[in-house]
Amino acid sequence: MSVEELQPEIHSGLARDHAPAGHEEDPLYRRRHSLAHIMAQAVRELRPGARLGFGPPTEHGFYYDFLLDQPLSADDLPEIEKRMRKIIASRQPFAMRSMPATEAIRHLEAIGEPLKVEYARDLMTHGETEITFFANGPFEDMCEGPHVASTGEIPPDSFTLDSLAGAYWRGDEKRPMLTRIYGLAFMNAAELKRFLEERRLAAERDHRKLGRELELYLISDEVGPGLILWLPNGAVLRDELEGFARETEFRRGYRPVHTPHLAREGLYRTSGHLPYYKDTMYPAMELEGESAYYLKAMNCPHHHIIYKSVPRSYRDLPLRLAEYGAVYRYELSGTLAGLLRVRGMTMNDAHIYCRLDQAKAEFLAVLDLCRFYYQHFRLSSYWLRFSAHDPARTDKYLDDPKGWAMAEAAVREALQEFGEPFDEAPGEAAFYGPKVDYQIKNVVGREESASTNQLDFGVPPRFDLKYKGEDGAFHCPVVIHRAPLSTHERMISFLVEHFGGAFPTWMAPVQVRILPVAAAFQEYAERLAAELRQHLFRAEVDAGPEQFNKRLRTSAIQKVPNVLVVGGREMENQTVSWRRFAQQTDQRVVPFAAFQAAIERLRRERLMDNFPDVAVDVPGV
Amino acid sequence: MSVEELQPEIHSGLARDHAPAGHEEDPLYRRRHSLAHIMAQAVRELRPGARLGFGPPTEHGFYYDFLLDQPLSADDLPEIEKRMRKIIASRQPFAMRSMPATEAIRHLEAIGEPLKVEYARDLMTHGETEITFFANGPFEDMCEGPHVASTGEIPPDSFTLDSLAGAYWRGDEKRPMLTRIYGLAFMNAAELKRFLEERRLAAERDHRKLGRELELYLISDEVGPGLILWLPNGAVLRDELEGFARETEFRRGYRPVHTPHLAREGLYRTSGHLPYYKDTMYPAMELEGESAYYLKAMNCPHHHIIYKSVPRSYRDLPLRLAEYGAVYRYELSGTLAGLLRVRGMTMNDAHIYCRLDQAKAEFLAVLDLCRFYYQHFRLSSYWLRFSAHDPARTDKYLDDPKGWAMAEAAVREALQEFGEPFDEAPGEAAFYGPKVDYQIKNVVGREESASTNQLDFGVPPRFDLKYKGEDGAFHCPVVIHRAPLSTHERMISFLVEHFGGAFPTWMAPVQVRILPVAAAFQEYAERLAAELRQHLFRAEVDAGPEQFNKRLRTSAIQKVPNVLVVGGREMENQTVSWRRFAQQTDQRVVPFAAFQAAIERLRRERLMDNFPDVAVDVPGV
Repeated sequence: MSVEELQPEIHSGLARDHAPAGHEEDPLYRRRHSLAHIMAQAVRELRPGARLGFGPPTEHGFYYDFLLDQPLSADDLPEIEKRMRKIIASRQPFAMRSMPATEAIRHLEAIGEPLKVEYARDLMTHGETEITFFANGPFEDMCEGPHVASTGEIPPDSFTLDSLAGAYWRGDEKRPMLTRIYGLAFMNAAELKRFLEERRLAAERDHRKLGRELELYLISDEVGPGLILWLPNGAVLRDELEGFARETEFRRGYRPVHTPHLAREGLYRTSGHLPYYKDTMYPAMELEGESAYYLKAMNCPHHHIIYKSVPRSYRDLPLRLAEYGAVYRYELSGTLAGLLRVRGMTMNDAHIYCRLDQAKAEFLAVLDLCRFYYQHFRLSSYWLRFSAHDPARTDKYLDDPKGWAMAEAAVREALQEFGEPFDEAPGEAAFYGPKVDYQIKNVVGREESASTNQLDFGVPPRFDLKYKGEDGAFHCPVVIHRAPLSTHERMISFLVEHFGGAFPTWMAPVQVRILPVAAAFQEYAERLAAELRQHLFRAEVDAGPEQFNKRLRTSAIQKVPNVLVVGGREMENQTVSWRRFAQQTDQRVVPFAAFQAAIERLRRERLMDNFPDVAVDVPGV
Repeated sequence: MSVEELQPEIHSGLARDHAPAGHEEDPLYRRRHSLAHIMAQAVRELRPGARLGFGPPTEHGFYYDFLLDQPLSADDLPEIEKRMRKIIASRQPFAMRSMPATEAIRHLEAIGEPLKVEYARDLMTHGETEITFFANGPFEDMCEGPHVASTGEIPPDSFTLDSLAGAYWRGDEKRPMLTRIYGLAFMNAAELKRFLEERRLAAERDHRKLGRELELYLISDEVGPGLILWLPNGAVLRDELEGFARETEFRRGYRPVHTPHLAREGLYRTSGHLPYYKDTMYPAMELEGESAYYLKAMNCPHHHIIYKSVPRSYRDLPLRLAEYGAVYRYELSGTLAGLLRVRGMTMNDAHIYCRLDQAKAEFLAVLDLCRFYYQHFRLSSYWLRFSAHDPARTDKYLDDPKGWAMAEAAVREALQEFGEPFDEAPGEAAFYGPKVDYQIKNVVGREESASTNQLDFGVPPRFDLKYKGEDGAFHCPVVIHRAPLSTHERMISFLVEHFGGAFPTWMAPVQVRILPVAAAFQEYAERLAAELRQHLFRAEVDAGPEQFNKRLRTSAIQKVPNVLVVGGREMENQTVSWRRFAQQTDQRVVPFAAFQAAIERLRRERLMDNFPDVAVDVPGV
């Protein structure tokens, strides 16, 4: 896996189907812009001494900055909103006028808008000769537009004021602190509502928040920023993911390897990562009289050494070497974010060495493996992106037109045979070959590159990789780099948010919690828990001292997938009252043996019983 | 686990029950010493011009260095041996005489022994006034003794000449090259035979030899010396060991964590590893404007950070944090040896945080865990070694007499309750607490420290570790460091030799190989293999092109634990002819389903079916 693919940039934006803030042609852009004016107009009604800063549309709405003689607080927002709705109801038309810059400055001085004066002077300095103003009703603002024709165009329930914050004039902390009021605005009330709901969900499901609450991981300044210490609950998630990958890859003909976390400098010169990627690697460990060592930022060079260690024949190919390999990259500290952007990550990595005539079939199998995982995790909204090279950019891409033609043809044919729709991103290939990303949109609507698969014909010759062909001559294999489950860090951050912290039984840190309704049944509960643990289930008893209802709530807060309530009747009949977290209202009384058989199956088949619609059969019940 | 325990020195010596070379009182020492004289006497008969260097007894026999006018080769050894046996048969008594040093030097000059003259002069310079000589028959040598009374005492079949090598006089390469002849000698022929057999076995079972033949691992100069790249077969061994540890530790109340492979310098200053162990760590990764980072050489500081991350109460203890953690140490390149002494190692590590009143029980549980593993792997010859501190060495040990008294009492009580015999090694404790090593003697008789367990009361205060006691006050826990399965590198090197490369089914890289006797049965073989792989067995078909007998031999050379031979009768009856590697003569025809059930059990119970005496039941047969 190449360095640049380890942590694909997050394509931000809750709203793939909403226009970004910059499109002036977009009706939503005009509405948001006009709402900024309307808000300023309303604020002026309440605070006639308010002077105006900037008031642009934004990605999800708008804001305006005010220099206030009397402060405003969040308590004032409802009153401002009310006045905005009145302005909308009065259907004020927007009208533009234009005047020479010098005249505009005199006008702004006259009406007492010092910040606008400053900005107008700047514009003039940069060559603007004419300055435009937009007026609606009694309010006028220096502004380039565009705006709606009338305030009446805006549905009064399509916007809301969101928050209030301090902001320095022009971002300069030596200048006065202004008051910024943020608003949200969409095409209609339904879209606004959906946005608010998604945002609420996103905040609730943020993996940093849930990571803390569920005690999944820790970042410690003493160890270093961006370096994850996996607490026991998070370590279980990692181990279960690895187990899933190990089994799946075994069935698909991968063979495991393990390689060290560092290597001599020369290895990275051979691979071409040095000096090119030096800045994104941790610095060298320098030794006297010996080569320097680098912490590895990718696993491929180590795997290439394994490939080279014995002579290979065409009969040995494809050779699929898999490693959940920890790699390290010195990302800028400002870019680090929870598990999503880190300095140490463990990749679901593999390298497939094959003949060019095998590349299409192998690439197809890799695409299928990704889909298998996505479907298993019920990540339904994914799409594919095919990144080809740009023949004009010989600086960026290997200059081998024949190689590119063959590699891109193999990948394109695999994609076509695969049958899933795909975007094309010309000029986004790796320097050594074309790639296909799986893009996903998670439960809160955020788009991410989740899995990257590349067909590399550029690096194998650098390592002088060879196999003896059927013709008796030596040939260079191609290499597929792939990471269907991404990195542990990224995948777990993603699944935490996708599941809202409620994991299926097979992954859950605590799989079964047993609650005796009273102390008399604790021994029975402990006996069941011991039996489950003997079968390697993560089972525990919560017998108090808290009251039963409190304990039940705690299990729900901790999203334990299976809660067994036991009392007198259960003990007498060797049964349990089984509550699934995914179906809070449901409670089934089943023989303990039947429960055990049921969760054996949940674990063995890795069923996604954290989704309420997944039927969980109880054998014999 | 402390740095100094990661790779305990190998205590060499094939023969714990044989006296080491230095015991003059030992009859074997005397015999070996006399044999050196007898050999010199025999060499003199063949090469009258041979001048004598040194001729001491050694750990397994003796040698003598000669300055030769006419060379000797290995072809001459039988003749020398023959002459030695004659000297023995002639029952020559040994007699000592003594003379003043100056007289001795004159005598040695007179008989033309320049090397002996030089040595006698040295002795005189160091204050010796008298020099002794031992004579038997016509041969006399300057020597301190002791010797046997008569050459006839030595059983003629209790020794053999072993090899011939060049050796510089007094180890100085500027001095003349002498010819050294090595002999082996034991109390009787049976012991000699046993030693030769063990040595043959040791060479055959050397993990470096088997590691190459079985394609377990690779060390590459491009990655760096002492850094192991685990090939697929070796990776399987690692993964199976980890799975075994994970299950076993889960059942014993450990909780998994995963921590990064590096940390900021400050962490190792807190732990005390810096600056003290700086030389055994890889050099720092230096950054401008940020703390330097070090590759970790031990996992404890990371685990302490996890312990500290939330407030702990006495109810949370014991807390057992387990990690198969990769650590790195910059060992001198000259000391590196295969998997046994490396620069990167993955430890079966855990740290148990407990109250002092829990320490004895926890330590006992750890001793029991070690024994569980040893017994499981049929490592029967182990013994324990208790290392206490030396109160006189306040430079080496924490100056806390009360702490030492409590910690050593807890460990000693645990050991006594455990009931296994133990040695004591005063002054061998870690600087922060007492320890108990499991010493093992492997199949080739070599003694090693395999597992180290320590009770640490010294480091927790450095990290300011705390828990809130039942009394409401804060106390500092003690920490047990333990690694029952040692490191992957060490354990696997050890098991490879212990098993002679023949692994039990549950660990084996290839668990089942299916051999169709002819091409007509290949499809049946492939069907069975696919069925086994579906159930996650590492099964494969070898259908040629080699002849059946050749393929059968290959499976035996590769020590595949289960070979299934299939032909017409097997295909017709849905059976297989099952050959276990451990029982080469045995071949059972069983229904395929019964075979499958049998190896399911071998895997689930991790039976050691690589030992011929382990019964392998076939359900229903």
